[in-house]
Amino acid sequence: MDAPRETILRAASDLFAHHGFAATSLLDIAGAVGVSKAAVYHYFPTKQVIYEAIVADILQRLYDHVSAAVPPDGAGAPTRLHTAMRAHAEFFEMNYTEYVTLLHGFGGLSRVVSDDERTIRRRYETMFRTIIATGIEAGELRDANAAVVARGALSMLNWMTRWFDPKGARRAVEFADDYFDMLAHGILAP
Amino acid sequence: MDAPRETILRAASDLFAHHGFAATSLLDIAGAVGVSKAAVYHYFPTKQVIYEAIVADILQRLYDHVSAAVPPDGAGAPTRLHTAMRAHAEFFEMNYTEYVTLLHGFGGLSRVVSDDERTIRRRYETMFRTIIATGIEAGELRDANAAVVARGALSMLNWMTRWFDPKGARRAVEFADDYFDMLAHGILAP
Repeated sequence: MDAPRETILRAASDLFAHHGFAATSLLDIAGAVGVSKAAVYHYFPTKQVIYEAIVADILQRLYDHVSAAVPPDGAGAPTRLHTAMRAHAEFFEMNYTEYVTLLHGFGGLSRVVSDDERTIRRRYETMFRTIIATGIEAGELRDANAAVVARGALSMLNWMTRWFDPKGARRAVEFADDYFDMLAHGILAP
Repeated sequence: MDAPRETILRAASDLFAHHGFAATSLLDIAGAVGVSKAAVYHYFPTKQVIYEAIVADILQRLYDHVSAAVPPDGAGAPTRLHTAMRAHAEFFEMNYTEYVTLLHGFGGLSRVVSDDERTIRRRYETMFRTIIATGIEAGELRDANAAVVARGALSMLNWMTRWFDPKGARRAVEFADDYFDMLAHGILAP
């Protein structure tokens, strides 16, 4: 066989990311690799299985990259956490296309953001940023970058859409309380 | 006309969320509302336009809900930010289906998470949680909930996929540095 599993995954990932999952056929994938459809079938019975393999593959590589970067216990938790966060960001940027496909599902990069959406989003983020900037000016908040704080707070809230269980024991506002406490006081021991 | 814009948007949102954008036709939407396809066309020329309208609509309502909840300046920035975060979480939970559709695009709730993916994700989050728990035990970190801190840090990193510009002036690791500083020291003035 001249079409190894990884070559197929890479080609499929690229097609999914740029054209979306729905618009990509097994034939497109075979064509991009330069093999027959049967050769692709040999490794993957359906497009869905290819997608799942891409996701599992990139998550595994993310894990390997970050765990290799984190220094041993002796370095202390703040340094270890900081290094892990940097390694994650580094991996994300090095694998941008695949990573976005993974995290945003079948739509991939093809989702179009309308001008309306952009305007409302900007206004919403500005509301948070203004609250923070006002607090910095009043001396209630540390002299931080208001844009970073606003974005950090909204990121944590928005990412809830990926793991929150509407039938779970805790309400969404309770998680918001946890995040606020963490943001307010920080995690370093005083 | 007996099929107001909002009824169409609500029905379409429900179909997109449960079956995905690709699998939903204008005819399905008309059927769910109980009108003819022509009635839907009267308001929306394409499915894409309906999707954009749903997104703009829910973002507008989120903005209205949160801005109405935030108390005036006199309440102080910490209280105002905390209230805004809670109001956001509350809105998200009240509008769960629509909200997930909005944030995760055309795939909606229909994205299937394989067991492999779940296992690797869990292991990755555990790595972060362990770093934090070890730091709490060692007295380097505040006695926080390690799961919340791990999830908060990963949420901020993961959400970068939604706004990071690979061609922008700053690298992903620089944003990771910003987030780490904010997490480490907190935002309240000392």
